[in-house]
Amino acid sequence: MEQKKTDIDVLANGLISGDRKALSRAITLVESDNREHRQQATELLERILPHRKTSLRIGITGTPGVGKSTFIESFGLFLVKENELNVAVLAIDPTSSKTKGSILGDKTRMSELAQEKNVYIRPSPSKGSLGGVTAASMESIYLLEAAGFDTIIVETVGVGQSETAVHGMVDFFLLLIQPASGDQLQGIKRGIVEMADGIVVNKADGSLMDKAVETSKEYYQALQMMPSVRDDWRTKVMHCSALEHRNMDGIWEMIREFESKRRSSGKLLENRKLQELSWFDHSLREGLLEIMMEYDEWNTRKEEVRERIRSGQVSPFQGAEELLSKLKINLGPGN
Amino acid sequence: MEQKKTDIDVLANGLISGDRKALSRAITLVESDNREHRQQATELLERILPHRKTSLRIGITGTPGVGKSTFIESFGLFLVKENELNVAVLAIDPTSSKTKGSILGDKTRMSELAQEKNVYIRPSPSKGSLGGVTAASMESIYLLEAAGFDTIIVETVGVGQSETAVHGMVDFFLLLIQPASGDQLQGIKRGIVEMADGIVVNKADGSLMDKAVETSKEYYQALQMMPSVRDDWRTKVMHCSALEHRNMDGIWEMIREFESKRRSSGKLLENRKLQELSWFDHSLREGLLEIMMEYDEWNTRKEEVRERIRSGQVSPFQGAEELLSKLKINLGPGN
Repeated sequence: MEQKKTDIDVLANGLISGDRKALSRAITLVESDNREHRQQATELLERILPHRKTSLRIGITGTPGVGKSTFIESFGLFLVKENELNVAVLAIDPTSSKTKGSILGDKTRMSELAQEKNVYIRPSPSKGSLGGVTAASMESIYLLEAAGFDTIIVETVGVGQSETAVHGMVDFFLLLIQPASGDQLQGIKRGIVEMADGIVVNKADGSLMDKAVETSKEYYQALQMMPSVRDDWRTKVMHCSALEHRNMDGIWEMIREFESKRRSSGKLLENRKLQELSWFDHSLREGLLEIMMEYDEWNTRKEEVRERIRSGQVSPFQGAEELLSKLKINLGPGN
Repeated sequence: MEQKKTDIDVLANGLISGDRKALSRAITLVESDNREHRQQATELLERILPHRKTSLRIGITGTPGVGKSTFIESFGLFLVKENELNVAVLAIDPTSSKTKGSILGDKTRMSELAQEKNVYIRPSPSKGSLGGVTAASMESIYLLEAAGFDTIIVETVGVGQSETAVHGMVDFFLLLIQPASGDQLQGIKRGIVEMADGIVVNKADGSLMDKAVETSKEYYQALQMMPSVRDDWRTKVMHCSALEHRNMDGIWEMIREFESKRRSSGKLLENRKLQELSWFDHSLREGLLEIMMEYDEWNTRKEEVRERIRSGQVSPFQGAEELLSKLKINLGPGN
């Protein structure tokens, strides 16, 4: 009764047994927009989803110049060397499609970490839309978990909605900032501070030491004015020096405290289920809107109504009602 | 060539000439869910939209107990008596459908203001959904503008997404808070502080005076940590006593500064156009999702996929792709 093994079976088995080449090929597959590749990716994911290992997913964000690469290198080395963990680093950068070939860039900027045996660094997929990047990244997390990684770091440069996307796929969300006086806004976007489970002031070294301590105090105080994102966790603020490898243990302790608390209460896994169902709903909504956007007749009529709204002839709600009343929707035959 | 005037013509003319009964009937009409009423409302709005007066729309939010009614009464009296303005007050309270008959309630709680000749107070529509309440409120604003009101206050109790809705229909958004030490969160929701153009600490009187000053300083400092919502306006923080009618002039001055700045730059009207087009897009999206939600076959298939996501058999993105690929959408014949 032996069946001929398909390529996807070989790929899945290679990935599960820890073959790095298989892992890289698999990630490239889930990143592809090609219709045939999508079908193969579906098959692959179906095969590997049950084999996923327990992992901790950490999101890291921060504006350019804050020292994200240095931080991830220092923190990653600490996890690998001091805690014997397998660490994977994924990047989400919706702008990378413009530059392409960021593989070299990513490996160069974390050169020491990249040389570690138990580390896998994957640059951002160079798909166009955040939606595509998001799906690819989330599915890459599944692949990494099936490949045996226990700590998955998802890094984002914080362009557009990418922080929200990363927040929706990780267990712990860390915001990296730099020492700066309170009235300098550091280009941090609205809502990001409130999404953070931990805020870490980097560059607490040399002449910036005092300022780093001051900045962390200021953020601590500002946080008292804001409600918590999680009902069982109050955002913590600390400082560190990635350059001098200082306080990586403190940060890890904070994340571990968060993890153990939420794992034992069941909230961590519950949150992941909610994240997944919310991605499903999100994808349906976005997909629905995409289908509409590609429907020329709809766009033409919509533009006509927009024009009437702009010139104050119709209320936005009535304009929408008018358009929607003409819509016919149905599902084709099932499987 | 004289045509027989329809009821809607009579209503529109009454409203435009300042008849309060016509105004009330018109608002009741736009609040109705009834299909025939919706058609009449469309007709009415088409008639009155070109007759709208230049107005300033002010949104006011704050948690229960902060003194919103007292504030609106004191501020409204100041506007009417000292500035000879015509003031309309709308409330948005998605929970009011449970209690109904809040008309009496609203008039009672602002009894002195309600007696003023140039004041019109309208309680929250008792529709079920926020979407319905929002459309009704936005369309009521149009009616009030056609009826000649120059200052329109939209009040919200801050339930669910109602603050965001109000923020999307006003020019200036004011957050009312009460004196409290920094670590008491006052139940203020995430994002609300960041949406505010002005934050006013009420109850700066008697024994709470010092605390009110302190609270406003704390909020001022916290705001330095957050980026501005508008590129031409930095959120201001002040304190007042609605009970003792103190600093109403200061608050009005702040709002006037905001208005004159944004009116002369064209940003105020530009923002309204953007708000309207964004309500249109929002209504289309919501309407589309509503149509899908009422489609049983879609729900059944969706639930099947959700089940497979929950049990870890399929990725959320692939589940969505699978469902969407079966969808057929088309528009019926045009007008």
